[in-house]
Amino acid sequence: MIKPVLAIHGGAGAIARAQITPETREQYEYALRHALAGGERVLAEGGLALDAVAEAVRLLEECPLFNAGHGAVFTRDAEHELDAAIMDGQSLRCGSVANVRTVRNPILAARAVMEHSPHVFFVGHNADAFARAQGLACVDPTFFSTTARREQLEAAQRSGSETIILDHDSAVSNTDGQTAAPIDESNKMGTVGAVALDSYGNLAAATSTGGMTNKWPGRIGDSPIIGAGCYANNKTCAVSTTGKGEAFIRAVAAYDVSAQMEYAGRSLEQATNQLIHSKLPAMDGAGGLIAIDAQGNIAMPFNTEGMYRAYVVSGQAPFVAIHR
Amino acid sequence: MIKPVLAIHGGAGAIARAQITPETREQYEYALRHALAGGERVLAEGGLALDAVAEAVRLLEECPLFNAGHGAVFTRDAEHELDAAIMDGQSLRCGSVANVRTVRNPILAARAVMEHSPHVFFVGHNADAFARAQGLACVDPTFFSTTARREQLEAAQRSGSETIILDHDSAVSNTDGQTAAPIDESNKMGTVGAVALDSYGNLAAATSTGGMTNKWPGRIGDSPIIGAGCYANNKTCAVSTTGKGEAFIRAVAAYDVSAQMEYAGRSLEQATNQLIHSKLPAMDGAGGLIAIDAQGNIAMPFNTEGMYRAYVVSGQAPFVAIHR
Repeated sequence: MIKPVLAIHGGAGAIARAQITPETREQYEYALRHALAGGERVLAEGGLALDAVAEAVRLLEECPLFNAGHGAVFTRDAEHELDAAIMDGQSLRCGSVANVRTVRNPILAARAVMEHSPHVFFVGHNADAFARAQGLACVDPTFFSTTARREQLEAAQRSGSETIILDHDSAVSNTDGQTAAPIDESNKMGTVGAVALDSYGNLAAATSTGGMTNKWPGRIGDSPIIGAGCYANNKTCAVSTTGKGEAFIRAVAAYDVSAQMEYAGRSLEQATNQLIHSKLPAMDGAGGLIAIDAQGNIAMPFNTEGMYRAYVVSGQAPFVAIHR
Repeated sequence: MIKPVLAIHGGAGAIARAQITPETREQYEYALRHALAGGERVLAEGGLALDAVAEAVRLLEECPLFNAGHGAVFTRDAEHELDAAIMDGQSLRCGSVANVRTVRNPILAARAVMEHSPHVFFVGHNADAFARAQGLACVDPTFFSTTARREQLEAAQRSGSETIILDHDSAVSNTDGQTAAPIDESNKMGTVGAVALDSYGNLAAATSTGGMTNKWPGRIGDSPIIGAGCYANNKTCAVSTTGKGEAFIRAVAAYDVSAQMEYAGRSLEQATNQLIHSKLPAMDGAGGLIAIDAQGNIAMPFNTEGMYRAYVVSGQAPFVAIHR
């Protein structure tokens, strides 16, 4: 009997250890535990890895603390554009949506694309229309807005409207090269994700995001890209990434872990460390990932100060952490 | 001194050998030679691989015979939504656009995203607006329309509006399971692409497409996805794919070739054959690819009846072919 395993993340580039208050830490840890428990329940009841990652990510989307669904960051135009992807390691089926604005849970839209369309990737208002036609809950775009995210946008725009260009730096710089106060890292690399192994030996991965604060409208990062932000294959592993999306696309990050395992015979730990601590830094890629292999091994490396993360092996106590 | 090499394709799933007329064959071969010569000229003048693939794909986009730019297929709503990607194997920089409707040459928009934005992937009207702001030529959407493509849409819709669902079959089937006459395969897997090795040892790849006839609006296939439809890395190879995009996304096809070479030590020929003749057929993936490695080896495998393709090694006679 395989012991089910579930791991989740709420984004790399966490609030600096020196700045986090005990209350804030408690809120994040509570939210991670809550999402983890929701996904674990699915697995404990004999559910599939696919169901578990969808439920865990749905719960993270509902939580205003994380940059996905309710609580998503704002684009340069003060709107929300949400991206999500899901992949089933057993069938290698997958689904993605990008730049959606009205479907309440983008991860459920991604799953509907996978299960109820002949395609695997839909973008924009057509993706929203598809989700609505599938009977998924739709909301007014203001549903996703929070005061904290609006303040982050205003801070980014005050420091120069082109801030996004240097948004991968740890401090905000404007076009004159002036450095402003550091902003919360969570608004840059905020992503949520889940990976799971179910009792039948199936792996699955899911990723969802609001993108980057002050991003140019129409921009798509790695999160909805199968192979970059999300990948699952029963033969190797399930991976969900978080970080500076552009580097993760260039590195084809999520599939790179699987390919290292399949073609170089590396372990999950070796493959994920190689990617996060060697390949990505060489291309200015800051971030992290969560991954599970077919034997239930878990890897959660990151090259930032922190990554909101948690995992649970069925029947054991959950692990929850923010910083190193 | 490295001998520059350029290879191009105009899509897998060519017109059946039994149906092609000598005149049609001549038109396609002329168009392939013309695009190849344009790219070869760039390389012969000491240009970069990146410049050569952009120029070859631009010429293929301008040609009404191929499903990219002028001559692109129609969506279900009788509109055009164009996708393109480009990647530089030296820097691993890349750029993509999807669902653009007004930029005359989507491949130039993809290159502008790579070179003049902080992001790597833009979609929809924001991508068109970015291209316009970059000074790229923009056109009325009817510029892309041709009579032949409109007839293909009408044929697909006559046989049932859900034809796209079974569009990977060799015959058109409607929702009642009735099989209609086979349609030109070129409207299903039509894509154009180019890969090049320049005299400095740099590799580059570019891919552009109009998608699938009668596709659902908002659908994105593999063409603009870095790692699926396009990938280049000086360490390994440059790849541009063509075929049923959904399978190529699930297989992370273009990067899979590079990963087999890097991690399993396979040759370009071994890696591309493994993908096209083993991995993709196992996931119902019909299509092909063109690839060049850092030593100038060329591979052009496909598992369909034909693939419009051509290559030239600097100073030698070009090779042009359609069927096996």
